[in-house]
Amino acid sequence: MKYCPACGQSVELRTPADDTRPRYICTACGIIHYQNPRMVIGSIPEWEDKILLCRRAIEPRYGLWTLPGGFMENGESTGAAAIRETLEEACARIEIIDLYSMYSLPYIDQVHMLFRARLLDLEFAPGQESLEVKLFAESEIPWAELAFRPVRYSLEHYFSERKKGTFSLHVDELGPPDYPPDSKLNNINTH
Amino acid sequence: MKYCPACGQSVELRTPADDTRPRYICTACGIIHYQNPRMVIGSIPEWEDKILLCRRAIEPRYGLWTLPGGFMENGESTGAAAIRETLEEACARIEIIDLYSMYSLPYIDQVHMLFRARLLDLEFAPGQESLEVKLFAESEIPWAELAFRPVRYSLEHYFSERKKGTFSLHVDELGPPDYPPDSKLNNINTH
Ligand SMILES: [Zn+2]
Ligand SMILES: [Zn+2]
Repeated sequence: MKYCPACGQSVELRTPADDTRPRYICTACGIIHYQNPRMVIGSIPEWEDKILLCRRAIEPRYGLWTLPGGFMENGESTGAAAIRETLEEACARIEIIDLYSMYSLPYIDQVHMLFRARLLDLEFAPGQESLEVKLFAESEIPWAELAFRPVRYSLEHYFSERKKGTFSLHVDELGPPDYPPDSKLNNINTH
Repeated sequence: MKYCPACGQSVELRTPADDTRPRYICTACGIIHYQNPRMVIGSIPEWEDKILLCRRAIEPRYGLWTLPGGFMENGESTGAAAIRETLEEACARIEIIDLYSMYSLPYIDQVHMLFRARLLDLEFAPGQESLEVKLFAESEIPWAELAFRPVRYSLEHYFSERKKGTFSLHVDELGPPDYPPDSKLNNINTH
């Protein structure tokens, strides 16, 4: 941020008197412009013993498989975001079961959430951001071609817990991945 | 938003070609400025059969009681945000147990999360934004003087479930409260 979104004058980065962190503050109107993490929300759509994956038609991670998901929008709930993203990316209708995982990625200021969900019919199809949408049994999951770590870890927990017949919430934090951080391969930047 | 934070020229509100919602787009540099919901994160600090509440020293809801919490910051995890806010508002050290509730408030573009937590010692004290910090047994909770609905609902679930000896995650959505929406009484706007 270089200019004030409210008045168009330049901002400076400094710590307000009653605060502990530097903020962007307008040199003209004095407004403090806070910046906060964003939520990336998706679903694990279930149909019998299979789950629905999408193959990405966009960067980053073009051509790799992922669960349907994307940035939560203003004016919606977390569950509504999961339902909308599943409709947009997989043209698929779901019913939310429960929150299944929440991964904080503090190095990119994101929190990724995945909801377990029931797929309501088989009329799915690739949305604009998907090359292909397909149901996978556990033995068919393309583990080596999954796009994002929160998706891979959530699916690992999911199949492991399904065998035991009980699902529990997974809350965890991920540091930067092994590939170069500036490649942004880990950053879902679709809307 | 009236001006582009990147170049300082004016923005217009229109729907990009590949999008379904109006966005702020710079008329000069063309950057699309997305706006997303923010997370408000807090804790339910437990000590024996009591939990720790703070009496607010700031608006909104000055003088009313709440659980320690506030806006999640860039560069931290959800759990770290709960720990930091508890230290700032109650000068209290906690250890996270688990995510206990997540309330979406789509009418103010917020998601409120509360974590169950163990209070680690009794050296708590009012932080800058609190008038008073105190441990309450269930029978002592000031139900009529609680500041925010996610706090009240979470505490109701908490005490009800504690009797049964089992805690489960609560995910829900809240519409605008009965008091006038422009009063922003429901909006935790502290940092
Ligand atoms: Zn300004
Ligand atoms: Zn611009």
